Order: sequence, then C-alpha cells, then structure tokens
Amino acid sequence: MIDFAEHAKLVSHKIVAESGLNAVIIMGASNIFYVTGSDAPAAAIVYEGGGVVALATRLEYLRASMEIRVGELYTYAKHNDFAEHERVLGGDLYEAVRALIPSPGDGKIGLIGVAANSRQLWEEKMGTKLVDVTSEFTKLRRAKDEAELNAIKQAIQLAEQAMRRAVDALEKGVTESDIAAEILGSIVRNGAQPAFHPIVAFGEHAAQPHAKPTLRSLQVGDLVKIDLGAKVEGYCSDVTRTFAFGKASEQQRKLFRAVARAQETALECISVGVKASDVHSKAYEVLKEEGVSKYFNHGLGHGVGIDVHEEPYLSMESTTTLARDDVLTVEPGVYLPGYGGIRIEDMVLITDKGPEVLTRFPKELSL
Amino acid sequence: MIDFAEHAKLVSHKIVAESGLNAVIIMGASNIFYVTGSDAPAAAIVYEGGGVVALATRLEYLRASMEIRVGELYTYAKHNDFAEHERVLGGDLYEAVRALIPSPGDGKIGLIGVAANSRQLWEEKMGTKLVDVTSEFTKLRRAKDEAELNAIKQAIQLAEQAMRRAVDALEKGVTESDIAAEILGSIVRNGAQPAFHPIVAFGEHAAQPHAKPTLRSLQVGDLVKIDLGAKVEGYCSDVTRTFAFGKASEQQRKLFRAVARAQETALECISVGVKASDVHSKAYEVLKEEGVSKYFNHGLGHGVGIDVHEEPYLSMESTTTLARDDVLTVEPGVYLPGYGGIRIEDMVLITDKGPEVLTRFPKELSL
Repeated sequence: MIDFAEHAKLVSHKIVAESGLNAVIIMGASNIFYVTGSDAPAAAIVYEGGGVVALATRLEYLRASMEIRVGELYTYAKHNDFAEHERVLGGDLYEAVRALIPSPGDGKIGLIGVAANSRQLWEEKMGTKLVDVTSEFTKLRRAKDEAELNAIKQAIQLAEQAMRRAVDALEKGVTESDIAAEILGSIVRNGAQPAFHPIVAFGEHAAQPHAKPTLRSLQVGDLVKIDLGAKVEGYCSDVTRTFAFGKASEQQRKLFRAVARAQETALECISVGVKASDVHSKAYEVLKEEGVSKYFNHGLGHGVGIDVHEEPYLSMESTTTLARDDVLTVEPGVYLPGYGGIRIEDMVLITDKGPEVLTRFPKELSL
Repeated sequence: MIDFAEHAKLVSHKIVAESGLNAVIIMGASNIFYVTGSDAPAAAIVYEGGGVVALATRLEYLRASMEIRVGELYTYAKHNDFAEHERVLGGDLYEAVRALIPSPGDGKIGLIGVAANSRQLWEEKMGTKLVDVTSEFTKLRRAKDEAELNAIKQAIQLAEQAMRRAVDALEKGVTESDIAAEILGSIVRNGAQPAFHPIVAFGEHAAQPHAKPTLRSLQVGDLVKIDLGAKVEGYCSDVTRTFAFGKASEQQRKLFRAVARAQETALECISVGVKASDVHSKAYEVLKEEGVSKYFNHGLGHGVGIDVHEEPYLSMESTTTLARDDVLTVEPGVYLPGYGGIRIEDMVLITDKGPEVLTRFPKELSL
C-alpha cells in the first residue's frame, strides 16, 4: 500500500517548512494523487503542520471521498441544492482555495503544478504573491519509495503478462487491433488500467514510433512492435518489445543488434549523478557507429511513476542529472519508413550501485 | 470520408479572410486534426488562400505524414542528423512556425487553441501581435457536416454493439473489470479506439458518476451503470445506460422514471436558439419535482465530436445558445451515496425541426 500520508509529510517538511511557507496549493491530477491517493480532486492544499485538504467538483466528490487516504475533502459550488454527504464551500475553485489558505504576507504560500504564465491569475485570485515550488515537488515525485516501487513492479508484472498474451496470439492474419484487444483484456481483467492505449504495429506500420493499432493483418516477414503498460495502485509501467514474425532477415537482425547494443551501452553508463543528456548521447553514438542514428528520432527514455511520462527525461535537451530512486525507461529505437521499426524498452531503477533493470521479459527478435 | 480540405477551406474563408488576416496558427491536437486529418502534428497553419502547413516533432513525423489528408508537412529540430524522408526546418517549434508565417504588421496573424495567458509568449516568439480567433474556430467545429455526422453515427453503432456485448456478459459474480474488458475488446477489434476508458459500476459504485472499473462482482439487486464510447475516423460517441440486475425494486424504478422524465423534458425543449443553460434547468426542475435534484451533481450534457467533451456544454454556467448541426449528449443522472446511481445518456443532433436522437439502444431499467 502506498503511504500517501508519508508523501504529504514529505511535502510539509521538505517544501513548506524548508521554504518558510505556511501552505502550498497543489494543482494537476497526478500531483494531487501523490499527496492524497486520488486524482479526482481539482486542488489540494498541504499546510506547514502536515494537514491536507482537497477540493473536488460535485461530479467527482464521491469518488474523491472514497479514494482519498489523507486529509479532509470539500466540494464547492455557487448554488445551494446539495446532498447530505457533501461538505460545501461557496463559490468557484479559486474562492474555495482562498477560503482555505491563511492570509499571510506575500511569499508565504507556495504553488505547485501551475504553468508560469498562469501564476499571475492565481496571484490575483489569492490576493498574494505565490512561490512556485514545482521543481522541489518534482524531486519528491522522482524519488520512488519502497511502496511506490512495489506498485511499479506489480504494474510491470501485469505488463509482461499482457505481452506474453500478445505474443501467444500472434499468428498469420491476426490484426493489430486483435492483439491490442488481447492486451487490454489482460490488463483490465486483472483490475488494473492500461497506462496508455497499447501500440501494436506490424511491418511498415512499425516505422511509426507511436502507431495506432489498425486492421492491418500480420504476414510472414513482418516486424512486430508492441508497446504497452499497466497502472496499478496509481503507478505505471511501460515496456516495448519488437519481434520478427517468421524467420528474421539479415537486415532485421542487424537493426535489432544495433538497438540492443545502444540500450546496453546506455545502461552501462547510468549511475547517480550522470547527466541525463549524456545517457542519451551514449546510445546515439552507438547508433551512429552502426550507421542508423538518423533513424533514431526521439529521446532515449523518460521517468515513470504516477504519470507514464514524467521527469527525468533522457534526451539531448535535458538539463537534469540522474538521482537515486529514479525509475525510468531506456528505449532506443530506429524507424525506417516503408520498412518498419525496432524499439527495445526496459524500465530501470537507479540505485547507489548502478541501474537495476526491472523489466524481465526476454529480449529476443525471434518468437 | 471526412473532407478535411473542406474544413481547411472553411477556416480560410470564415476566419482568415473574414477577419482580414493573412494566416492563422492552430494549436491543440483536436484543432489540428480538424484541418489536417491527423492529431500527430504539434501545430498547423492555414493561409488566406487556403493552403495548409503542419509541423510535427521527429517522433510523430512519419505518423503525421501517413495520416494528413491536407497540406504540407515539416519537422523541426536543432541538430542535423536526419533521415532522407524528413523535411526539416531548423530550430524549435516557435522558430519553425515563425519561418512559415508572413512578416506582417500587427493584427494580421490569428491564433487558435492557445490560452489567453500563453498568448503573450506566442506574440514575443512571433514578433507580432496575434488575434485570438479560437471562438470563431469553435463555431466551425461545432457545426457537424454530413461526413462528420456519418463518422459519429458509426461511432454510435460501435458503442451500441459494445453495450450489447456488455449486457450479454452480465451474470452473477462477473466483475466490473470483466465487463470493461468485453467493451474494450468489442470496440478495439472493430479497428476503432475507445473514446474514453469505459465506466462500469455495480451497486454502490454507481453512485460515483465517473467510477473506475474494479474487481467488485455483480450481485442480484445491484444497479449496473455502463458509460462507453468509440472513436471512428477521429469522431467520438458517448452513451450511458443503467440497468437493474435482478428484479428492479420500487426505489430503483422510481429513480429511473425520474431520470427518464428529466431527459424527455430536456429533449422537448431543445431547438435552435435555445439557451444551453435553460435546457439544463428544465431537467433540473423535473428532478426537483421528484425530490432528487440534490443528487444531480453535474451538467446535463456536452458537445461530442473530435473530442468526447467539447462545446456546447449544457450546464448552469453555460452562456451559449444551441445551433443547427450541434451534436451533444443529454444525460441527467442522480447519485445516492451508498446506494447507487442512475444516468441515461443519449446523443442528439440539433436540426431546424428540433432534436434528432441518434442513440437507438433501448432505455429499459430491466435487463
């Protein structure tokens, strides 16, 4: 079980107290989930003493009330025809939040998850200057604790089970859509949610990194790219495998080896304190040696947690360094228009001893 | 087949020309889809003469190139290791857009789909004042043409087929997750996408308007609320039905009749020129007469098209009036904590002769 009270305490200690604030306003479904256990509320507030209050629309109030593990819950509205169970603050969301924050001098209230260009509106509505502490919060979300890691490991297990089901269903004539349905069925019947709509791409479709499943049917000689993930207790997994249907051609094996070597090289250089952009570059350099770097058209990986894509990003433009307890994907890929594409994606935990690969599904081109 | 070229022409005539602009920059995946046929690009530009140019990240470039039905496509990046098929503009998205717009005096370039508080950033990046024409664009997206309506009708047909599959699978002990898997399988195997993750809620879970499917199993006496939708050719459907599993109780029948009457009354008052908020109020008044309005905790409905929730919204706060060719849901609901909830949702086309109900699935409480 995820310890959301511990998360709220971390926010209170590491952000509210350390930044000399009285309280922090948290926006964004995944950010709110991190401190309450529910993505249903529209806003949450964490106070200096560790108290938490969440605000949900009337539509989401009951789900929020059943899901939240921490703190108090209110709804808000401008009229007055409410059910018995609803705890209501008048007005709109801004007015409700304002009623819940102390009236301090400027610089005593923090704001998380609001884009810089919207902060001014929030400051007008709150009648005070707000301190953007989003980057401090992102650090907390990046460092996965044991319970979060367990949820992620379960999500990986369900993803691998779905991958196995998908592989078992591959046969001549089956459609990408059929395989996507197998994957969704496997994940959902286990009581989990898909972390995203699965990617199942045969043959030339595999050249699209984010292909949508279609009614294209599987033929001997096709590459098969499958990218899927599950969400368990609010935490995601994300795994990609690529297979050759039928005997792999020399070209397919050459490309697969290039991608596999890029992944291995990236994994070898991962450790605490390494620049995220350097990890991307290591994989890029391998693909350059292999003569296929021009077909590697995306970042090498991304953090995974409450969101399937979150900090840290392994990309050319990234300015962050890897930290202990980061969980992220390492997923080099090459994509040749008209021919197909190959991506291999594993999830990795950063430890003091280096990377621990969490994904166990075999990495074999041949089925 | 959707006529995206016609959409681009509409934007060029009704927005660019009529507002005296030279071009309009379009942001937001669904807005971009409306004029190109693909949601893969990151931006699109429509010129006065009707020309269209789209810009995609390298990651999404190939999918965009296979999906777009109108105009030219470029990608953009800051480095120089590209595949043969990529048509590249240097720099980031802003620089690429700026390279594609004429250098006019202020007030000659429109902007669509960018929040007011982000427009200033766009103006700095483009070096010119931009005219927000989002509301004019929203009017075009609201009015469904024949091809869009056909896609929506197909999406409704797939939704109703999935609803039938779900109903057929209801038996004692089956879980909400099992039914959700049936629904997803039915939609996806047809080559369509789910418009949203299906809601399947048994018994007390049905009191959450947006419940997530769980491993709760079906028992005699439960209400069963199922809300699902499909996406076909980029256009969505959205339908909800509520059933009693086992013989319906007097209370269940009373609540069902109240909701059904609220829906009928709302439908009767729908016509071109009616205020959206008045339609909501009509349904609310019926539920008030029935003594359950305090359990009606959301808006009465919403437009459906490329997005499953789009303009116009039927709610208390709405300021719009209904127009010909609007497609929207009418979905009153009541939700009693600990007991369950009932929602009936149909899709409706607004015609000169009044509302045409597009949903055909029977509205019966008893299975």
